[in-house]
Amino acid sequence: MSKGGKSDQEDGEENMAAWLVGLNTLKIQPFKLPPLGPHDVRVGMKAVGICGSDVHFFKALRLADYVVKEPMVIGHECAGIIEETGSEVKDLVPGDRVALEPGIGCWRCDLCKEGRYNICPDMKFFGLPPFHGSLARQIVHPAYLCFKLPDNVSLEEGALCEPLSVAVHACRRGNISPETNVLVMGAGSIGLVTLLAARAFGAPRIVTVDVDGNRLSVAKELGADGVVEVSTNMQDIPKEVETICNVMGAKVDVSFDCAGLSKTMSTALSVTRAGGKVCLVGLGHNEMTVPLTPAAARIYCREVDVIGVFRYKNTWPLCIELLRSGKIDVKPLITHRFGFSQKEIEEAFETSAGGGNAIKVMFNL
Amino acid sequence: MSKGGKSDQEDGEENMAAWLVGLNTLKIQPFKLPPLGPHDVRVGMKAVGICGSDVHFFKALRLADYVVKEPMVIGHECAGIIEETGSEVKDLVPGDRVALEPGIGCWRCDLCKEGRYNICPDMKFFGLPPFHGSLARQIVHPAYLCFKLPDNVSLEEGALCEPLSVAVHACRRGNISPETNVLVMGAGSIGLVTLLAARAFGAPRIVTVDVDGNRLSVAKELGADGVVEVSTNMQDIPKEVETICNVMGAKVDVSFDCAGLSKTMSTALSVTRAGGKVCLVGLGHNEMTVPLTPAAARIYCREVDVIGVFRYKNTWPLCIELLRSGKIDVKPLITHRFGFSQKEIEEAFETSAGGGNAIKVMFNL
Amino acid sequence: MSKGGKSDQEDGEENMAAWLVGLNTLKIQPFKLPPLGPHDVRVGMKAVGICGSDVHFFKALRLADYVVKEPMVIGHECAGIIEETGSEVKDLVPGDRVALEPGIGCWRCDLCKEGRYNICPDMKFFGLPPFHGSLARQIVHPAYLCFKLPDNVSLEEGALCEPLSVAVHACRRGNISPETNVLVMGAGSIGLVTLLAARAFGAPRIVTVDVDGNRLSVAKELGADGVVEVSTNMQDIPKEVETICNVMGAKVDVSFDCAGLSKTMSTALSVTRAGGKVCLVGLGHNEMTVPLTPAAARIYCREVDVIGVFRYKNTWPLCIELLRSGKIDVKPLITHRFGFSQKEIEEAFETSAGGGNAIKVMFNL
Amino acid sequence: MSKGGKSDQEDGEENMAAWLVGLNTLKIQPFKLPPLGPHDVRVGMKAVGICGSDVHFFKALRLADYVVKEPMVIGHECAGIIEETGSEVKDLVPGDRVALEPGIGCWRCDLCKEGRYNICPDMKFFGLPPFHGSLARQIVHPAYLCFKLPDNVSLEEGALCEPLSVAVHACRRGNISPETNVLVMGAGSIGLVTLLAARAFGAPRIVTVDVDGNRLSVAKELGADGVVEVSTNMQDIPKEVETICNVMGAKVDVSFDCAGLSKTMSTALSVTRAGGKVCLVGLGHNEMTVPLTPAAARIYCREVDVIGVFRYKNTWPLCIELLRSGKIDVKPLITHRFGFSQKEIEEAFETSAGGGNAIKVMFNL
Repeated sequence: MSKGGKSDQEDGEENMAAWLVGLNTLKIQPFKLPPLGPHDVRVGMKAVGICGSDVHFFKALRLADYVVKEPMVIGHECAGIIEETGSEVKDLVPGDRVALEPGIGCWRCDLCKEGRYNICPDMKFFGLPPFHGSLARQIVHPAYLCFKLPDNVSLEEGALCEPLSVAVHACRRGNISPETNVLVMGAGSIGLVTLLAARAFGAPRIVTVDVDGNRLSVAKELGADGVVEVSTNMQDIPKEVETICNVMGAKVDVSFDCAGLSKTMSTALSVTRAGGKVCLVGLGHNEMTVPLTPAAARIYCREVDVIGVFRYKNTWPLCIELLRSGKIDVKPLITHRFGFSQKEIEEAFETSAGGGNAIKVMFNL
Repeated sequence: MSKGGKSDQEDGEENMAAWLVGLNTLKIQPFKLPPLGPHDVRVGMKAVGICGSDVHFFKALRLADYVVKEPMVIGHECAGIIEETGSEVKDLVPGDRVALEPGIGCWRCDLCKEGRYNICPDMKFFGLPPFHGSLARQIVHPAYLCFKLPDNVSLEEGALCEPLSVAVHACRRGNISPETNVLVMGAGSIGLVTLLAARAFGAPRIVTVDVDGNRLSVAKELGADGVVEVSTNMQDIPKEVETICNVMGAKVDVSFDCAGLSKTMSTALSVTRAGGKVCLVGLGHNEMTVPLTPAAARIYCREVDVIGVFRYKNTWPLCIELLRSGKIDVKPLITHRFGFSQKEIEEAFETSAGGGNAIKVMFNL
Repeated sequence: MSKGGKSDQEDGEENMAAWLVGLNTLKIQPFKLPPLGPHDVRVGMKAVGICGSDVHFFKALRLADYVVKEPMVIGHECAGIIEETGSEVKDLVPGDRVALEPGIGCWRCDLCKEGRYNICPDMKFFGLPPFHGSLARQIVHPAYLCFKLPDNVSLEEGALCEPLSVAVHACRRGNISPETNVLVMGAGSIGLVTLLAARAFGAPRIVTVDVDGNRLSVAKELGADGVVEVSTNMQDIPKEVETICNVMGAKVDVSFDCAGLSKTMSTALSVTRAGGKVCLVGLGHNEMTVPLTPAAARIYCREVDVIGVFRYKNTWPLCIELLRSGKIDVKPLITHRFGFSQKEIEEAFETSAGGGNAIKVMFNL
Repeated sequence: MSKGGKSDQEDGEENMAAWLVGLNTLKIQPFKLPPLGPHDVRVGMKAVGICGSDVHFFKALRLADYVVKEPMVIGHECAGIIEETGSEVKDLVPGDRVALEPGIGCWRCDLCKEGRYNICPDMKFFGLPPFHGSLARQIVHPAYLCFKLPDNVSLEEGALCEPLSVAVHACRRGNISPETNVLVMGAGSIGLVTLLAARAFGAPRIVTVDVDGNRLSVAKELGADGVVEVSTNMQDIPKEVETICNVMGAKVDVSFDCAGLSKTMSTALSVTRAGGKVCLVGLGHNEMTVPLTPAAARIYCREVDVIGVFRYKNTWPLCIELLRSGKIDVKPLITHRFGFSQKEIEEAFETSAGGGNAIKVMFNL
């Protein structure tokens, strides 16, 4: 992974990548790869999905505290084929099909050393400024973050290990098992993979909540036991809580807030049983205000814990196994496909941004 | 424990108790004890402390959803001497000095059966309507909730096992150990016992925060490594966070919010390290609003978990051991003492309510 | 549950039960029920399975430290129909079909209070001297230990919640999830339900090991990904370990020793990966010796923990849900059925004791 | 850290180190340092302790599966002064006094990534063949494994962070807290630091057991609440268990077996309470046999778990804090000191090997 700000051409053939060069502006331009270290591999990228955070950078050149100050290669949901391996790489050979975990921990800080590298403050993450992403013909990456795909798992499915990893990490943090009834707030792509992962972790009943009936239909098709369409009005929480309870037909043990809004969090805190957990899996807006009282009372008097879920760690092997065994099928999430050309690239991002019926937009390189 | 609403006189000698009969009105009146079951003991009450929740009932006849509808005996922080034991009681004999755990779980619900009886929805708790409390000459209680005091632990200290239990449960939920730097928001009586308990659990550095310099002086005397006086103004959070970090001189691993205000929670969420915990130990007001964004971002991006802490479970043996060994000294917390008489009883409650320099007000019966 | 040693006839109709009255000798005789307490129910027993421990008492009048000194009603795997409910029972009514959890914790000791009632030293357990069992027309039991069966779960399946509970508790103690490859040592009835439960908890690969090819065929039919037939010779461990690794085709994360022999434990310790767990689910013989060195070295240098698994706690709701949803099918385990008559009863126990192809022997009352 | 087998002289000044060149034979010879990487530091070694494993290599040229095939620099308990820092090192400067963690995980395997680097199969560990140790004038080591010492912690104390780390890791694995009564089997140096660490973690009662009265006297001086002198005879276990219980005067919650013998393990399993833990902290001999029955019965029927404790992870900051704050004083453990000369070096190892009253033998360089 190389730092942003440079696009010097390599000697010989040019490696092309999708550079975010300005608001709503992507350009396919040459991208010079860093040298291949002894533990690195060079991967020919074949499938790259567009994530909501990519779209956010495309539309705003920033996300939370991360600001795109210089042109940057975008993208981080990816899979490809090994082209070259460093001298010390033992488990991969050219031709291997691999899914890539996009973040490189520092392995020197306390958090990395105790196995929580997902919150390492020095993580280098594909397409998070100032680090380049992976929507490129080729990238160089540490071999230990490239995971071989079985024959029956496609490269597109490999790329979707990234969003699926968020869901798997959420299920681990929420300790989902065959005895955990699950509520999923939100039926966007993260809400949907969370539904799939919770099912794979054995959750006996899963109810999905959203404001959009179409998205809820997708949730139902993907296996939700029940769905509840809600408003955006805080006043409706009490009656919606009642509806959720009825649709669940059992206690809500763990709620995943995949929308991250005042209302979704308040609803989750109200509906989750005493001793349960609310996992915050996604943040919706930059500014919101929530009346803490009923929420805090649930946290306090009923020991409902609020658990942060950020990215993932050590999830690729499990994701690949879940895809291989057929316990999870992510293919229905891919609603749009584009080629890797200047002509299609911005259209792909606009499609992803447009909402509508787009769930996951995928590049085939 | 008997349900509220009756004060029938027993045959023979009358047992007297402090009845909450109206707003700001307590009357010492006869209190009929329930029959002694085979696993029960009758305790002659000797020391009863006043808790903030007792004061709340005294001043408002309600607390959260709990409403005093009929006259009710008040009080729940207590210790006394065994007077009579049920036929199946083996470990206690008349004359034993005991501290009493005030809540009786149902032992039939899922939460009781999995060891989280503190959040049992059917708990019968001293002085929480509709159940009578323990500010009485005598009470009947299950033997398994009466814990023998060693010779070097006084009955007053025994009564203080109740607030100390809140702190011990908080330290367990926060997983406090010799490698946990602790922030305590609030230097009221719960904040102070939390400081004492965190020290006993080995916390290497503890910083206490409050708006009241006098209370902070007490925290310092009780062993806080540092104290920070703060305002009630939300705008001051960023600079106060900086001050707290400086005074701590290290990362804040776990914060205990013993005030339960929008500002204390926001501060705690901002100052706690990635991967740390904020434990909500007390609720301040009935209505508050907190801007969730920075708070939620901490929970999300840094996996700072918010942990509810409600009452306690299985804490008495540990509290007694901590008092016996001298690892904790709660005696300095007792600032006022009163006798059990009609003349003194309301004065005692007013003293406790008055704020000022009262920390813990104790009845000696 | 009543203590053993008496069979006084009730006034009115006689309740009949299977009494263990001597070595290999069972008699159907009247069994007087205790009075129905306010939280109790009277259950008409309909299905009772025979457990290996029942057989042990039948054949030896003892098991470990438990000795049958007086005639005792036997049996503890059971389900039936509610006939009468105590005055305080709210969730059950006559006619409800229920599975019964056979052990009653004291709810006063430390272990009960912290949620580990399965190892309560004062537990009263069906058919464990001096407490009577449940192979009777009627028994009285606490309502909170009687769990309603859904329409699609039969009474026989309800009775099998007991052995299944052992497996579920083992999976919880072993923390089985979709990322845990599982080895099961032993394909007797506990080994088989452990296989079923591990599958329901999501284990991606499960290999079963036994000395008996027929039992391994059953394991294969019940869903084992691989089976390994082994010898009883300790010298064969190294090569068998190699075979197990090959058949697993992946690391062994958790091993369940359901045989409890020197060899099975040694094999499990050798084959389990660094950082994994060996759960001891069953004890085979009363006397055995194991060379600790390689075993201890695994425990030490590779932090392979040995986890005890004794009975179960809070497992019935999950077992019933797993049966209801079809995630587990225990019906194939029932190989023999008998009626509740003096003629059939000893034959049933001899069938269970005989080994051969008997897995689970069931009484229909 | 460089691989063994070479002692080429560097250009310029020679770095001298203690080479194990044959049975009972150490030679001080030149030792060529590897190049200083960007994240490395060069440390001038000042204090190096002798560990039992060092002595084992000295006396046998092997330990378990590790065989000294070529001359190897020995030693791994060490502290020194930073002499040079790599280009990317930020937190250390020449002149800093540091304690060194001796093992370098691979940070690519599953165990490293999940934070259990102590059992990384590819760990490079000081003085474990084929890797050189640290009994040298200078060594090169990753900066992230060098921990700055406060002014009031000496270099000798810094070196003792290594054995203390074993104890700290044991206390974490055993979950020692103010509510854990602790039994320590063995009063050698690991048993003694375990006693000190358990005290620092808050253990209210600690009893130490050994066959050697002198060592028990040291344990008593270091703060054991009670000591029990035992035999080496397995037959004595029942009466010794009774004595241990009496001396403890309470339940044994966690036992640390720091001797790793058949008898110590059997005793620990017998005496530990239901639901408790036995942590295996040290292995005594290469070959032993233990009758598993009573042991296994404890593991099984009473859910006494056996927990492996291997080396340590992330312990140096805590050890240093415990020394800084005075919660632990390791200085009394140092019974002998030697200079770093050919004349003294073998004498030092013989002293350490000799048993007698040597606890910790320290080199000052």
